[in-house]
Parts: sequence; C-alpha cells; structure tokens
Amino acid sequence: MRFSKGRAFLFRVPEGEEFLSFVNTFAKKNNVIIGTVSAIGTLKNPKIGYFEEDKGNYKVISLEGTYELISALGNITLKDRAPFAHIHVSLGDSEGKVLGGHLIEGEVFVVEVFIQELLGEPLERKPQENGLALWDEVSL
Amino acid sequence: MRFSKGRAFLFRVPEGEEFLSFVNTFAKKNNVIIGTVSAIGTLKNPKIGYFEEDKGNYKVISLEGTYELISALGNITLKDRAPFAHIHVSLGDSEGKVLGGHLIEGEVFVVEVFIQELLGEPLERKPQENGLALWDEVSL
Amino acid sequence: MRFSKGRAFLFRVPEGEEFLSFVNTFAKKNNVIIGTVSAIGTLKNPKIGYFEEDKGNYKVISLEGTYELISALGNITLKDRAPFAHIHVSLGDSEGKVLGGHLIEGEVFVVEVFIQELLGEPLERKPQENGLALWDEVSL
Repeated sequence: MRFSKGRAFLFRVPEGEEFLSFVNTFAKKNNVIIGTVSAIGTLKNPKIGYFEEDKGNYKVISLEGTYELISALGNITLKDRAPFAHIHVSLGDSEGKVLGGHLIEGEVFVVEVFIQELLGEPLERKPQENGLALWDEVSL
Repeated sequence: MRFSKGRAFLFRVPEGEEFLSFVNTFAKKNNVIIGTVSAIGTLKNPKIGYFEEDKGNYKVISLEGTYELISALGNITLKDRAPFAHIHVSLGDSEGKVLGGHLIEGEVFVVEVFIQELLGEPLERKPQENGLALWDEVSL
Repeated sequence: MRFSKGRAFLFRVPEGEEFLSFVNTFAKKNNVIIGTVSAIGTLKNPKIGYFEEDKGNYKVISLEGTYELISALGNITLKDRAPFAHIHVSLGDSEGKVLGGHLIEGEVFVVEVFIQELLGEPLERKPQENGLALWDEVSL
C-alpha cells in the first residue's frame, strides 16, 4: 500500500508503436516493477474495453480513425511475475466527442508519457472469481 | 502553494465501499492533510454533479448501471479542519460513451487509487459567495 | 527521459484568468522548465483542438458556456527556449456529456492545479514535418 518514490520518466513513444505493449516493454527493460502512468497525445484505431461482469470478460470496442488521447491514466504492477500496465483512456474525435474505457491497444501517432516508479512491497495481480486479475484489497 | 513530497499510497479500494467516503476516511486515518488523488477502475450507480452558478449549488446527475472509471482526478485539502477530497470523474458506458463531472458518490466495483501526500502550509477550503468552498487564489 | 523530482505546486488559479497562459506564465516566473500538470475545476467558453494530420494543424472547436473541467493532463517542457505547457482536457456539460481534446484556451471559473517539477536533461519541442513541435522519440 505504501511506497517511496523511485525514478521519474517523461518521454515520447515512437510513432507507429503499440502504446500498451510499449509501456510494458519499457517497464521490463527499465525494471519498473510498480509505478503510475499518465499520458496525452494522439492514438490511431484504438481498441477499448468495457468489462461485462456477467460474462467475466471485456467487451471490445474497436474504433477507427485518429483520436486525441485526452487522458491515459493507470498503473504498473506485477502480473505473472512481470510488470503489467493497466491503463484507462479517454479519446476525442474530430467533433470533440469523447469515447473511452479500458485500454486494450492503440497505435501511437504522438504519445507523451509520464511514468513514476514506486518502491516498496510489490502489488501483485491475482486471478479473481469475477474474471479479473486484481491486487488484494486494502483495509482501513 | 509550494510543497514537498510526503508518502505515496497505491491500493485497491474494497468492493462495495463508497469511493469518495473511502478516500476521505483513508486520508483521516493516515493523516494525509494535503495530497493529490488519481484512480481508475469501475464504479456502479455513480452520482456526478454540474455546478450551477446562478443557483450556487450542484445539479445532481444520477447514473444507473456499471461504468468504467476512466479517470478520477483531484486533491485532498482541509475543509472544516478535516481532510476533504475533491475529485472529478469520467465514466465509460458499455458503448464507450463517456459521461462525467464532479464526483458526488459511486459504489466501488474495482478502484485502484494513487494518493500522493504533500507536505507544507495546508490549503484550506473557505466558503465563498458563489456557494463553493475554495482555497485562496494564488498570485503571480 | 529520466528525471528526479523538483518542487511540487498545488494552487488555485484566479478566476477570470486564461488557463493555459496562466500555467505558462507560472512556469516562467517560477523557473519550472520541465514538469507534469494535472488539474480539475470549471472552465468557461473553452476552445479545444483536434489535430488534422492531412492539414498539419489543429481544427478549433469553440465551446460556449460553463463546463466542469473533468481532467486537465499534460506536461511542461521547452519550446523556443521557454517553458511551454501541452495540456489535454475533458469537459462535462450540464447533462454530464463529455467533450474534449487539445486545450487551446479556457477562461477559469475555478481551477485547482497540481504541477510537479522534474529535474534533468531538458526535453525540447522541435518542429516536425507533420506540423507539430515534438520531443525526440525515446528508444528502448
């Protein structure tokens, strides 16, 4: 639950990369086990998800075209012993209308990412009965 | 206005809790007087607000169902001598459409929260003529 | 790419200021060369942009009225040797519908901003063929 601050990274993802994969690879290569992620920019043909509780998995919403990445917000923690990014995105179209959800994938046109590494007892995602992989709940 | 960094917290809120109350109670119990808050996850039956300036209070928008919590962003500062969270949320429905505003309440299905404590001269919310409780304005 | 933490600022922008200009002026006056920005609040008559790749510039979407500033997220880096803020915003109307994109301008009603200064080799925006001014891409 409680962490101290590690390294801070601010960078531009190369055009053409898949955003979520890039964050995961970046975390692996730089040994960022736990951290927070935020980003803005532009994504192409993003796929977002809506979790369907009765089915226990994500409904995939495939968008076509170019979207302003209004917000990408999330975290990096351990899953299957590797750093794993969980990111939610809001996306703006050419009329300023906003769509969004759980990020599944998105092709980077321009993405400017901030990653704050956290140091402490690692949070680990464990499979739950509802189909999600989650950290243990905190208690007050 | 200026702060140094305190403790950093990253945790999952227990399912079924009311999100805003939980953040306030967490802040009280852990003595987080000033801080920033960000979160993603899933909320059920959230209530959001739109401030109506002519009336001096929030119009309540009650949503039914389950929403991806695309972004929760805000701060913790003092109000009536206790830590008080001010959070704005964007919420995604099953079609990826996004609704949002000032968070009034939301039932947690899954919420992953990051709280960064800040240390310094406390910001305090004071009642204003317009009906809001706000910190003093900064000056350049 | 890699930074250490500098100063942290949490403050309320005076009512009536233009949000983006205020952040840029604040950064100049306080010598914040590199940093992250996040904010919530309320903006009036905001102008947002959607980048049109074929034209190489932003289509401007002018909104009228008062909007909950649901999220303002972005960064401060160097452009033409001065601190320059790049911010994306999501905005909620009186029905909770959300619009958003690249922030061009917005009149502050209430804005609560968090700026985290970063210290390290400055990121600099350079003009690209596509019409944008961007940092060098990172490489893995």
